[in-house]
Amino acid sequence: MIMTAPQTNGYTFNHTMLRVKDPKQSLAFYQDVLGMTFLHKKSYPDAEFDLYFLAKLSDDELKNLPSDEQKRAEYTFSQRGVLELTHNYGTENQADFAYHNGNSEPRGFGHICFAVPDLAKAVAWFDQNNVVFQKRPEDGSMKNIAFIKDPDGYWIEIVQANTMN
Amino acid sequence: MIMTAPQTNGYTFNHTMLRVKDPKQSLAFYQDVLGMTFLHKKSYPDAEFDLYFLAKLSDDELKNLPSDEQKRAEYTFSQRGVLELTHNYGTENQADFAYHNGNSEPRGFGHICFAVPDLAKAVAWFDQNNVVFQKRPEDGSMKNIAFIKDPDGYWIEIVQANTMN
Repeated sequence: MIMTAPQTNGYTFNHTMLRVKDPKQSLAFYQDVLGMTFLHKKSYPDAEFDLYFLAKLSDDELKNLPSDEQKRAEYTFSQRGVLELTHNYGTENQADFAYHNGNSEPRGFGHICFAVPDLAKAVAWFDQNNVVFQKRPEDGSMKNIAFIKDPDGYWIEIVQANTMN
Repeated sequence: MIMTAPQTNGYTFNHTMLRVKDPKQSLAFYQDVLGMTFLHKKSYPDAEFDLYFLAKLSDDELKNLPSDEQKRAEYTFSQRGVLELTHNYGTENQADFAYHNGNSEPRGFGHICFAVPDLAKAVAWFDQNNVVFQKRPEDGSMKNIAFIKDPDGYWIEIVQANTMN
């Protein structure tokens, strides 16, 4: 068995934070197209920003989601695979405002990734929802992966786990 | 119960990808300090980059980790909370090379976050490992969160779930 330091027992890779220009568009995309569930919101009106937390949950998890607000917050910060979207007020009204997706200079962050049970069916679903592709499965040499773009242009890799090596 | 589109059943928010300058330093940090387990590597020597996949797993998960390479790949791409590190060959030898952490202009990606069972104990552990803090719990108004930096300067938020609201 691989050893990890006992001091790190219970550590959880909880979330990834992306800034978004227009939370209405981003929440619609992540909820409607990727099936994520809105879990929790934190508002900081004095500092003029809101935080939205979402996760892609199974039906069983959805059934057992705590409704009490404090319990929901604790739940949100205990899970793996949470997406945090930060909205700085007003960006949605600036026509020329855009966030940097990390894949042109200066580079750093690259993408998030969703695994799907069936890549071809997922591609059809994305097409049905007019999702923009950065790379369709048939583009390039790696036919088993796709990249779509979220409303801010962040790249989302799409993989089917049993075709990956 | 909150409804999600049946077309998204089985979708999984699998991983977040960050480019790293020196994989030796990054792997040491994420494995030794944050207790993540190296799951899988993909090498593209012709294109001069490697991909490293890590996750923070429980003891039970570690015991049941598939050892077969193909099964391990499928496992890697089926989990939530995986971190993918991309190493473009040679960056580790360029003294002035640095990736952009997204928190100065141009902004976009902000941070990843680990939840820990006890924030004070985690801070002591990070100090013991000479981790650089972006924000210690006592800095600023939010005393229940900290931000540390990984070897590339990416921000990692540290929270204790039962103190979050």
